[in-house]
Amino acid sequence: MANWKNLDQLQAFEELKAAKKVNIREAMTGESGADRVRSFSVPIAEGLDFNYAARPVDADLLAVLAKLAEEAELSEKYKELYEGAVINTGEKRLVLHQLCRGQLGKDVIADGVNKREFYVKQQERIAEFAKKVHAGEITNAAGEKFTTVVQIGIGGSDLGPRAIYIALENWARRYGKLKMEAKFISNVDPDDASAVLASVDVAHTLFVLVSKSGTTLETLTNESFVTDALKKAGLSQSNHMIAVTSETSPLAKNENYLAAFFMDDYIGGRYSSSSAVGGAVLSLAFGPEVFADFLDGAAAADRAALETDPLKNAAMLDALIGVYERTFLGYDATAVLPYSQALSRFPAHLQQLDMESNGKSVNRFGEPVDYVTGPIIFGEPGTNGQHSFYQLLHQGKTIVPLQFVGFKNSQIGNDVIIEGSTSQQKLCANVAAQIVAFACGKDDENRNKNFDGGRPSSIIIGETLDPKSLGALLAHFENKVMFQGFVWNVNSFDQEGVQLGKLLAKRVLAHETDGALAVYSELLNI
Amino acid sequence: MANWKNLDQLQAFEELKAAKKVNIREAMTGESGADRVRSFSVPIAEGLDFNYAARPVDADLLAVLAKLAEEAELSEKYKELYEGAVINTGEKRLVLHQLCRGQLGKDVIADGVNKREFYVKQQERIAEFAKKVHAGEITNAAGEKFTTVVQIGIGGSDLGPRAIYIALENWARRYGKLKMEAKFISNVDPDDASAVLASVDVAHTLFVLVSKSGTTLETLTNESFVTDALKKAGLSQSNHMIAVTSETSPLAKNENYLAAFFMDDYIGGRYSSSSAVGGAVLSLAFGPEVFADFLDGAAAADRAALETDPLKNAAMLDALIGVYERTFLGYDATAVLPYSQALSRFPAHLQQLDMESNGKSVNRFGEPVDYVTGPIIFGEPGTNGQHSFYQLLHQGKTIVPLQFVGFKNSQIGNDVIIEGSTSQQKLCANVAAQIVAFACGKDDENRNKNFDGGRPSSIIIGETLDPKSLGALLAHFENKVMFQGFVWNVNSFDQEGVQLGKLLAKRVLAHETDGALAVYSELLNI
Repeated sequence: MANWKNLDQLQAFEELKAAKKVNIREAMTGESGADRVRSFSVPIAEGLDFNYAARPVDADLLAVLAKLAEEAELSEKYKELYEGAVINTGEKRLVLHQLCRGQLGKDVIADGVNKREFYVKQQERIAEFAKKVHAGEITNAAGEKFTTVVQIGIGGSDLGPRAIYIALENWARRYGKLKMEAKFISNVDPDDASAVLASVDVAHTLFVLVSKSGTTLETLTNESFVTDALKKAGLSQSNHMIAVTSETSPLAKNENYLAAFFMDDYIGGRYSSSSAVGGAVLSLAFGPEVFADFLDGAAAADRAALETDPLKNAAMLDALIGVYERTFLGYDATAVLPYSQALSRFPAHLQQLDMESNGKSVNRFGEPVDYVTGPIIFGEPGTNGQHSFYQLLHQGKTIVPLQFVGFKNSQIGNDVIIEGSTSQQKLCANVAAQIVAFACGKDDENRNKNFDGGRPSSIIIGETLDPKSLGALLAHFENKVMFQGFVWNVNSFDQEGVQLGKLLAKRVLAHETDGALAVYSELLNI
Repeated sequence: MANWKNLDQLQAFEELKAAKKVNIREAMTGESGADRVRSFSVPIAEGLDFNYAARPVDADLLAVLAKLAEEAELSEKYKELYEGAVINTGEKRLVLHQLCRGQLGKDVIADGVNKREFYVKQQERIAEFAKKVHAGEITNAAGEKFTTVVQIGIGGSDLGPRAIYIALENWARRYGKLKMEAKFISNVDPDDASAVLASVDVAHTLFVLVSKSGTTLETLTNESFVTDALKKAGLSQSNHMIAVTSETSPLAKNENYLAAFFMDDYIGGRYSSSSAVGGAVLSLAFGPEVFADFLDGAAAADRAALETDPLKNAAMLDALIGVYERTFLGYDATAVLPYSQALSRFPAHLQQLDMESNGKSVNRFGEPVDYVTGPIIFGEPGTNGQHSFYQLLHQGKTIVPLQFVGFKNSQIGNDVIIEGSTSQQKLCANVAAQIVAFACGKDDENRNKNFDGGRPSSIIIGETLDPKSLGALLAHFENKVMFQGFVWNVNSFDQEGVQLGKLLAKRVLAHETDGALAVYSELLNI
């Protein structure tokens, strides 16, 4: 059994506090900079490399971080997780999302079931269902093929699957893999469901209702919008809606749904893209083979994270450097900056993944910790962000570590040459330039044009954004967040912080309020 | 002439440092909380109210902030700005975006031109052009009506107009005002232009090329994608593309464009939604009357910002409290959280507006400042964010002030009643609940379920999101950012921080690199 200790109980804590800070600007200038870029690189999987040359570490600091990894028993804890220990201590649950895409250790039996077999079974059921839909064997009541799939879900049932759909939509179009267009309804704002419903041909739409518990208020409310729209069109819900839920939920074995596919309590919402939550909508949109490739990519990154030497384990190294930046250098936020328009919603997904997992003030035993934990995550795709918030990143008073992502090739393959270079080359030139600009800065006597540099970043470089590399990219970040949770000794798999708001909202709707809440309710006309 | 002093040269600086901190939790609990919610409210315009009950101020602190406003001469500086002083000191330019929507003071004559007349003239030209397009008097070469408008621009030429279009699209559809569907191409990533072009019927599309200088590389590159697509379809650019640019740019008086509409150097990109940059695409999409209403709403908020008593001036008060939170309480980030799906891209626009304006380390004279300036801005619409990153906001180690926005009514007006309440009521109940949950928290012996509270927020409450209230909302934030720039004594209207990256990217494309930059270029296959 691994030892779970707070970060400040480890020897490496004091060593990191005392460690000599790296001057990124110096380190990244001249030939030493070139050497770093060549050597500070670790493969992830599926052609992705994690290059951390411009982050605030050197050989000495890396040695302390490696010691931290060992002292914190990161590899042992990872093993416990994938072999089915109760890692989610608060909710007393196993943490098994990785079993949806592979098996790294011994069989995990829970509730009398081999969980890997269970998840694979659901994927097979989904694949079979999706193939029948695509083949026109499952149709609407008029015998016509479904053309559109609409996911109804919120949080983890929305952000991940949506980001993945957007990331692969153009790729799928190019290679003839776009079987059905996908749309998403998430917000309880009635305008969300209304607008999506107005934009689709309901008669040829298959809806995927996603709620693990079967009780998420937003999702059930949006279900009603859809059933109303179906009724008005003279259509039956049971012909047009499937459910993704747990086997014990009211949505399971319910004849309102054409079919139900299952996940369970061992898969947290924000980690559920690899489960039926992502599987149903993505298999319908792109075909089950594409979803299988995505899972293979994720599994490859999971395997890469087995490496016990953190200098050869990209997810672990990314995690350790991130902890150093956050807890020891005191940087509050991290920006995720993919130079790929297809990844436009990927930062929003990572925002949930990271902030909901590690935005905690207590350790996994419920005791307050005395050090800062997970950072604020935000980001937009480049080059757009350059023309927006990069001003603060370059010249503001606050240093924000940056996580760039870039690909050598575009997805669609259509390009133009202007001023001697393609757009894809311009895109890549920009991300290369930004890393160096942030790291090295530039002196100018006019202080308004002066760049201090010293702003840390790393980049994940890939060949092309496709199902496999996307799977690896997602799993890299999931594993990074997991390792960081281990280092900070927090439970990365619960989210008690969302409960109080839910409780108070219920009181407002029941008109059981007083004090400030009563007046806000009045002002908002509830 | 106003006196421009650094914040730490003002008496109020020391007083704010010494001021007793407000315990939000205490202040917001019980009847005193109810009183605050009732009384800590200032009208903006167009039915919007700014309620700051849950922010960390009380009567004493507000008195010091009022003193700060006076000492920093905020109203005098605002007057200088709208009457045409050289407020943008770095670039030696006037700052005139407000003149696009009204005139608050004496005539502004620059370069021999009455600028208000110039901006109005452009709006009239756009209105006339848009009406002709809608009436089928301006058509494609085959004499067919244009159905779609595509804006080509980046940064300020993209984020603001795009956020506004998304904010009003459903409203316009409901009221029969959606004249043309709008799309946007921004990223130099070739997949952006390729995907948008594949999604439109080029023969019936009017393109709006937006670049003030006429030299923005991303935008000119994307223009080529469009002209290629037009050529392939046997169509002529001069029938399908208009330009929005400055009169001196290479895009002006250029027969490649069907028409050109003008802005000038006195309108910064991130402040340009009110100018021809927003005017062309939005007038084409919704009709010039809708755009005129949007401008009226913005003008009303500009007038409200004239009030010299900060306790009656929402933009000024929001600015002052924000400076207090940022510089004196040390909060690095602010989240913008609109409870309105239509405002899904509004946070991204505010991110540019705020971070590019005030993310500076030097004052308006180019001298380093010794205090922190503009915050990191991020956000997503509620209730979606509740199921994502709110965990960290509630229970994380970092306190993030929150700016909520909510409306009593939905835009589309379509709703369902589930468990006794409409979706709109649920939406509003959630935002009310969140404010109180963040402020008051909840004690629990299980520390994992404990909420410390004390997390500051304000809310802007409106009736319905429509062109006028949206204009007022945008202007509120523009004016807030302006006042904050005055307090911090930074130049909120230049963006020197974007230059170094551009320069280095050019070097990469010219293969004039060495050191780290050369190796990154290799790795990225440039």
